[in-house]
Amino acid sequence: MMNDVMQLSYALDTFYFLVCGALVMWMAAGFSMLEAGLVRSKNTTEILTKNVALFAIASLMYLVCGYAIMYDGGFFLSGILESGVTGAEDDWYYAPSSDFFFQVVFVATAMSIVSGAVAERMKLWAFLAFAVVMTGFIYPMEGSWTWGGQAVFGMYELNFLDFAGSGIVHMAGAAAALAGVLLLGPRKGKYGKNGEINAIPGANLPLATLGTFILWMGWFGFNGGSVLQTSTVDTANAVAIVFLNTNAAAAGGAIAALILARILFKKADLTMILNGALAGLVTITAGPDIVSPVEATIFGGLGGLLVVFSILALDKLKIDDPVGAISVHGTCGFLGLMLVPLNSDATFLGQLGGALTIFIWVFVASLIVWGVLKAIMGIRVTEEEEYEGVDIAECGMEAYPEFNKG
Amino acid sequence: MMNDVMQLSYALDTFYFLVCGALVMWMAAGFSMLEAGLVRSKNTTEILTKNVALFAIASLMYLVCGYAIMYDGGFFLSGILESGVTGAEDDWYYAPSSDFFFQVVFVATAMSIVSGAVAERMKLWAFLAFAVVMTGFIYPMEGSWTWGGQAVFGMYELNFLDFAGSGIVHMAGAAAALAGVLLLGPRKGKYGKNGEINAIPGANLPLATLGTFILWMGWFGFNGGSVLQTSTVDTANAVAIVFLNTNAAAAGGAIAALILARILFKKADLTMILNGALAGLVTITAGPDIVSPVEATIFGGLGGLLVVFSILALDKLKIDDPVGAISVHGTCGFLGLMLVPLNSDATFLGQLGGALTIFIWVFVASLIVWGVLKAIMGIRVTEEEEYEGVDIAECGMEAYPEFNKG
Amino acid sequence: MMNDVMQLSYALDTFYFLVCGALVMWMAAGFSMLEAGLVRSKNTTEILTKNVALFAIASLMYLVCGYAIMYDGGFFLSGILESGVTGAEDDWYYAPSSDFFFQVVFVATAMSIVSGAVAERMKLWAFLAFAVVMTGFIYPMEGSWTWGGQAVFGMYELNFLDFAGSGIVHMAGAAAALAGVLLLGPRKGKYGKNGEINAIPGANLPLATLGTFILWMGWFGFNGGSVLQTSTVDTANAVAIVFLNTNAAAAGGAIAALILARILFKKADLTMILNGALAGLVTITAGPDIVSPVEATIFGGLGGLLVVFSILALDKLKIDDPVGAISVHGTCGFLGLMLVPLNSDATFLGQLGGALTIFIWVFVASLIVWGVLKAIMGIRVTEEEEYEGVDIAECGMEAYPEFNKG
Repeated sequence: MMNDVMQLSYALDTFYFLVCGALVMWMAAGFSMLEAGLVRSKNTTEILTKNVALFAIASLMYLVCGYAIMYDGGFFLSGILESGVTGAEDDWYYAPSSDFFFQVVFVATAMSIVSGAVAERMKLWAFLAFAVVMTGFIYPMEGSWTWGGQAVFGMYELNFLDFAGSGIVHMAGAAAALAGVLLLGPRKGKYGKNGEINAIPGANLPLATLGTFILWMGWFGFNGGSVLQTSTVDTANAVAIVFLNTNAAAAGGAIAALILARILFKKADLTMILNGALAGLVTITAGPDIVSPVEATIFGGLGGLLVVFSILALDKLKIDDPVGAISVHGTCGFLGLMLVPLNSDATFLGQLGGALTIFIWVFVASLIVWGVLKAIMGIRVTEEEEYEGVDIAECGMEAYPEFNKG
Repeated sequence: MMNDVMQLSYALDTFYFLVCGALVMWMAAGFSMLEAGLVRSKNTTEILTKNVALFAIASLMYLVCGYAIMYDGGFFLSGILESGVTGAEDDWYYAPSSDFFFQVVFVATAMSIVSGAVAERMKLWAFLAFAVVMTGFIYPMEGSWTWGGQAVFGMYELNFLDFAGSGIVHMAGAAAALAGVLLLGPRKGKYGKNGEINAIPGANLPLATLGTFILWMGWFGFNGGSVLQTSTVDTANAVAIVFLNTNAAAAGGAIAALILARILFKKADLTMILNGALAGLVTITAGPDIVSPVEATIFGGLGGLLVVFSILALDKLKIDDPVGAISVHGTCGFLGLMLVPLNSDATFLGQLGGALTIFIWVFVASLIVWGVLKAIMGIRVTEEEEYEGVDIAECGMEAYPEFNKG
Repeated sequence: MMNDVMQLSYALDTFYFLVCGALVMWMAAGFSMLEAGLVRSKNTTEILTKNVALFAIASLMYLVCGYAIMYDGGFFLSGILESGVTGAEDDWYYAPSSDFFFQVVFVATAMSIVSGAVAERMKLWAFLAFAVVMTGFIYPMEGSWTWGGQAVFGMYELNFLDFAGSGIVHMAGAAAALAGVLLLGPRKGKYGKNGEINAIPGANLPLATLGTFILWMGWFGFNGGSVLQTSTVDTANAVAIVFLNTNAAAAGGAIAALILARILFKKADLTMILNGALAGLVTITAGPDIVSPVEATIFGGLGGLLVVFSILALDKLKIDDPVGAISVHGTCGFLGLMLVPLNSDATFLGQLGGALTIFIWVFVASLIVWGVLKAIMGIRVTEEEEYEGVDIAECGMEAYPEFNKG
């Protein structure tokens, strides 16, 4: 039996995990609103459906097998979940259930990244089938090699560091998305025959902005909770600086993208600013605990610059990502990993090795799964369905049935 | 004077109550967005007005008399509220004000359920008058018999258990709503002369989805806070498993409704998925502390299946509930109560007795109040107002004045 | 080295600051949605851009100089930020970084108030330039005289009290807004030649309602965090009563505005109800710790009445404030300050002196900055841009590009 002070410490750390986990769960709403705002109105119901369903699937699959694969070296229903019901084990310093709760919302985040990139043309059920494999197996496997402690390919010798998941969560999600996008091809009309890149504006920018603010807020839980403890002076200081740096990086990213877009396009491009803020958040996520607030602002700013160029470059390559998810989470996730050595013992080689391990595993595994799905059931809606909008075809209902569209 | 450790424990439990209470307050925004998304655009301003006003009325009435009735055996301004100002009583282990804050947001939840079911045809001021009685008297009375400890009709002998309010809050709200709907009748055009059931799609599905995510998040506070303490290992474990199970049940409900709707309607019906998630949440609310995460997923799934059938059945009975609130909160609230005996000392008879006590009291009392209001001021808008939309008639302003509607 | 109990206390207070700070950050989303809902669709992208950008600018400027000016008596990069990285100082009872995090979101709140009042006609870049000076200098200066402890003009002798910033944050923001509005002039078409006041309805009331609920929720952090400690019985009680009173005041404000609007306009005017709730929140902010919940309801109700009359009066004076920000935050901020002496040692003279000091400083300083900006780059868009909407001119994209507007 623990004494009262130890019990309080246990309780505080548990509550901290739960609050942070609830904030990360809230990011699911953020991705939903961001993506619903950036697609066309005729594809809005379907992207909302995907986002709700993927969160539910992630919650189920991580419970059934994901957590066991990632942290237990097993394959089915981690024993930790039972101890959460029956009482604490002696060697836990916070409720095991709170750890599961905090981890399960992470896998949903990784999957949410995918839905945006494949929006407006992927079949709903193919997407959901992929979500089952991604959240139940692909993500947990790479998670087990890193946070799970079962290192492969010498990742530990290389001293790979990824604090809250610039690579393990965000770049992983982007790698899965990229594999899907490559097999899927661009939306009809996105790229013209003579190399034109046609802008396809999102239907509802207030929603996209709301989604960004939700993500910004949720990220305090994402990064802040990743300290994994808050009951001592040192850990409380770490959590506090992580909150502060997370905010600073988002601010830096938004400002950098605002200024760069002004220079490049002569306008204050709201979608670039939103992606800039998110890019700053992704970039800092690999090491929000080891930098000063000024460095966090600068790192976030680098992310905000990079994301604009990355979005432009992917369009040049005819890789069609309606919401910019691959650039935000993939390109800037990689940037985040590579900035870690500047302030830690991690090496550039180690970070590169870790990044490649994650990327290759998730990309190849995803390519196989997408490929199998393509062969079995097809992954792309018909041309007519795409033209009419996937909402009617897949969900049988419009998102805004009363409003006349131009 | 308490020692430092006791003070910390007091502080942690208080803070936990406040955070959970803030999350439950946030559910008011969830109901608002859900309902605003599921009604037609011409009735949107009014449903928003109802939701903001009912939350304010609930806050006022519970302060004036509700809390005193429910927990003090008095009828006016509980003394606890004063001690919140002047300092802690010796026999409190958390701030009395935090208890009030946590409870006051529950009564608003019960009332929010009503607004959706009577949407698009009920007079605003009749609704607000009902809200005064519901939040100040009807809900507090049944609350006093259960959580308040003043058992009637042998509820304690029957060992009635309702952890966070599947029955006490959700089914109670649905009972009040059902009474209103029966007196009010269906919306014009909902049911055809030859038995047709006409779908009346909601105007803004992103809002409805946002509302569901808000409710999902807020439910962590609703159920998690209902452990009532978190400062020990045992209670911290309980809070953690409640968070985890709450999430699992919502996921189970969403997935079950997704699959069932696919089978029944051949489509991924977003509104059914949203209601499925909410049904899962309502179902688990009676006992999120006594099940494993797998059971929580299954229980939530049962709720997700039941809600679809309940919505279809109510339409067959020509009970018109624009947002499905009676099915989500009533039918699944009852399901939640009846599942409790599977994992506890509660008996089916006891649960049934408790459910009937709550239902009959709230339904009959509400029927009387709605009936009196109908006699005095009328509860239904005129046919012309209903056709034009209640926004102009009641609020004098449209929700989306610039957008052309089809 | 602190003992375990002290460390836990440090950790709890830090976590409390961070949670409250995250809630205040969330208010940025609230202002965005509120303002985006209350402007016309053609000016929506720009108001969203302003809100995201101002939050980022506030975060940067407060880091670079604002915090140092306000709390350190310096002008650049407070040393506290470094100690946040390297570990706690012995004389801190919570993480220094958490204090910064909590304070930085306050300055953004003050600036958010401005964006609404100058909406639909101010140049984006002039606004952002003003945001740099306001968040980096004007606000921190007045903050240093009050919360920063560097009293001027005998404010301490006068016993000026402003618990969480009715004056220091809200009225300050309104003063800056008023200066801008006076230099800017009203929107074209707002006031007719024969004295008509033309209503210009907001385009999206669900967004405005969502924004209000977000602000209502965020205010728990704004006021609750301003107790500055929660780890003892006394402070925990204070935080709890502040949460409760904050909610009660919002409820009182909403109900009072609902009833008054019914009397004045014969309608349940949703925008007035929303402003009433916000007015209640602003009013209680000067002293939520010293009143009973009934008094809080009444004080909030006074705010809810006053804001309606203030909005009407400003329109009579042809001071065009599209969202009512000057009335909500300025008029009711002043009311809040003047109610403090009823329950404390503060004097009416002291409150008046403090209010005048804040108002005159911010108003005059802002007038100078706006004036300089007007001279250098202009602060108002061209007539044609105003007619077409600032979204295309400033941001190059519409907020709702697919929806036909009437």
